[in-house]
Amino acid sequence: MSDPLEKKLATQSYKGVRDFFPEDMAILRYITNSWSKTAESFGYERYDASVLEPAELYKSKGAENAELVNEQTYTFFDRGNREVTLRPEMTPTVARLIAHRQRDLTFPVRWYSIPNLFRYERPQRGRLREHWQFNCDIFGVADCTADIEMIALAYQTLIDFGATPAMFEILINDRREMSALYAELGIIDSEIVTAITRLTDRKKKISKEEYYNSLKEILATDELVESVISLVESDSGTNPVVSGLHELGIQNVKLDRSLARGFDYYTGTVFEVVDLDPINNRSLLGGGRYDNLTSLFSEEVIAGVGFGMGDVTMRDFLESHRILPSQIAITAPTLVIIPAENENNLAGEKLAMHFRARGIKTAVDISNKKLGKKISDAAKVKVRYALVVGETELQSLNFTLKDLELNSTQNGSVEELLTYLISQI
Amino acid sequence: MSDPLEKKLATQSYKGVRDFFPEDMAILRYITNSWSKTAESFGYERYDASVLEPAELYKSKGAENAELVNEQTYTFFDRGNREVTLRPEMTPTVARLIAHRQRDLTFPVRWYSIPNLFRYERPQRGRLREHWQFNCDIFGVADCTADIEMIALAYQTLIDFGATPAMFEILINDRREMSALYAELGIIDSEIVTAITRLTDRKKKISKEEYYNSLKEILATDELVESVISLVESDSGTNPVVSGLHELGIQNVKLDRSLARGFDYYTGTVFEVVDLDPINNRSLLGGGRYDNLTSLFSEEVIAGVGFGMGDVTMRDFLESHRILPSQIAITAPTLVIIPAENENNLAGEKLAMHFRARGIKTAVDISNKKLGKKISDAAKVKVRYALVVGETELQSLNFTLKDLELNSTQNGSVEELLTYLISQI
Repeated sequence: MSDPLEKKLATQSYKGVRDFFPEDMAILRYITNSWSKTAESFGYERYDASVLEPAELYKSKGAENAELVNEQTYTFFDRGNREVTLRPEMTPTVARLIAHRQRDLTFPVRWYSIPNLFRYERPQRGRLREHWQFNCDIFGVADCTADIEMIALAYQTLIDFGATPAMFEILINDRREMSALYAELGIIDSEIVTAITRLTDRKKKISKEEYYNSLKEILATDELVESVISLVESDSGTNPVVSGLHELGIQNVKLDRSLARGFDYYTGTVFEVVDLDPINNRSLLGGGRYDNLTSLFSEEVIAGVGFGMGDVTMRDFLESHRILPSQIAITAPTLVIIPAENENNLAGEKLAMHFRARGIKTAVDISNKKLGKKISDAAKVKVRYALVVGETELQSLNFTLKDLELNSTQNGSVEELLTYLISQI
Repeated sequence: MSDPLEKKLATQSYKGVRDFFPEDMAILRYITNSWSKTAESFGYERYDASVLEPAELYKSKGAENAELVNEQTYTFFDRGNREVTLRPEMTPTVARLIAHRQRDLTFPVRWYSIPNLFRYERPQRGRLREHWQFNCDIFGVADCTADIEMIALAYQTLIDFGATPAMFEILINDRREMSALYAELGIIDSEIVTAITRLTDRKKKISKEEYYNSLKEILATDELVESVISLVESDSGTNPVVSGLHELGIQNVKLDRSLARGFDYYTGTVFEVVDLDPINNRSLLGGGRYDNLTSLFSEEVIAGVGFGMGDVTMRDFLESHRILPSQIAITAPTLVIIPAENENNLAGEKLAMHFRARGIKTAVDISNKKLGKKISDAAKVKVRYALVVGETELQSLNFTLKDLELNSTQNGSVEELLTYLISQI
């Protein structure tokens, strides 16, 4: 199989994606399990689909998406000449699934998923070519309680990781309210409103001058430009979602009239959660209300509210606030059984079965290493307990359990040590 | 956003892959959680990687793999002209990861993963274009206790689903033993042995005549052909892995001299678990020992033993033996809070927070449906408990909890009902 003259392959992953060695996998699982638990506590049901989707799913949604499909997705033709895309976001997929079962589902439908998503872009901090995203949606509710619940779920997601409300802030706006406020200024053309919204979405990333000048290209007069700037910077007015969240005891919420959110499909409430850490002051998640996500598939109208958040920003948040527990990255078993000699390997495996049957994660060190090295290696990978099995132990049926952390020992029969271990963990 | 004249998109998934609606997702999670639990009870640590791998990873392994990459994988060029493959199996990936950390890892290394794998092939029962696979490997152990442990893990995986040993059988062979037996017949050329092995791997799928005639093309004489047939059909001899498994109390094991397994990289023990159900008499999983999986990346030799099993065959096995618990497909919350009027929606959400905080999965029916319809819908989706919130309840702080399964009720304060619910679930 191996030709020594052959050039060896590199062991790196494909560019921009990640390998999950056990300690990183443990952190990813900690994050996704917590997401899952919070969503299910709110009665959300998990779904998924394949990463492979027909490319047309992303092509029918207007100019910005055409650009996305053409330049920022993994899209290729399969051997049957079908055009396929690796899903760049979950919203079109969930819309497809809801439309597929529209007549059978009992609304309101609460669904969540944790898909991996792909974007072909220059890898940079927090923006890889593949990431995992927590997606929550509620379908079939017009009442703004759905918006309040969705934001309460986003809030609880962070709280369930041990975050405090002082660590983050929830920004809220409403496109219907913005349209009414623009109308008061005399701006009623929906294309102009959309242009202002898209531009305002980039406001924090561009200079005051650029924002001003770009608004000037959209609007007729300097006066109007200044009115719009004064409006988006005012954060004035009342909003039922903000007051509803206050009513639920969620106080780190504020109205932000400059909050726009990129996607055109939002029609009402839009929201974003930002990290208040000054060195990591980024958006943690975003979402909003849409009127009819299933229109690509069906004439029946289904409204919804949803949000998405990524695993990379989540991990950054947990790490920068020091709320990622260090012990979760320890993936070693609880107990390692150490045969004194290789002849005792099978006896070691037989013994291990008793511990496993009682829920204790147990490995057997069946390597050729010397006894002392086996014990020090167990301690090195953070195994807590070790149990040596040699002829003496097998004859006497009396074993010694070493606690590698406390450096103490316990003697007894298998049954006695089992009882002891179960009481300890 | 929607143009009524526009052709609506189909709601089906891409061909040959699956959508996981909540009830199917629940079954997939039940299967993968059980896999994970069994592997961890044996001290295996979970890893993963991206579905995207450099195509060269699959191209360097000889003729059968070249064919696989060219005809049976999803392989394409990214926009940077890198050739990428959607991983068709996990073995090359795990070899890459092990080689990457070879010097830092403490051997023996026990790793498992549950990746989704892609093959571009004609969809048929049990063989889709994407499936999920349980992969377990132990690296760095020459001793046959590793082979015994790996098969004991495969055995326990099925037992942990509630399977009995009568439902399946473990077939074992050893390529080193086969080489010795062929040598006794005078067959020593390794290419001829490989050709016989590959042919014998297909023995159960082809007729006796075809097997005979194909052997005839490989071997010199009819006598030799008959000796080989008699050998592969004899199941004679002893094998340390078979006797080791007996020693561990695993009895549904037998030596099968016709067992070959497809992959060339196996060098010692090979094994397969077959379903004994006459209507579903298929291979459930397969694996074996390999000498040096990391040779593509490094000169250092690492031996290993591993197996893989798919989610589709697993689910078929559980369903045909009726050991898939029906309640796992119920994904509804435990409790639904039902506001009597829309004005009570927010009060319902506020109440729900108390139940969620105590670990009870709680949704609020904030739809426009009438009270009776909300209750019947809750029962329809198999919610167990319902609690109505109207002005009367909010004034008196006395609530009625309905058990929708037993059709009984319980009255009390929120705290009393919480205590009651926690005692019930």
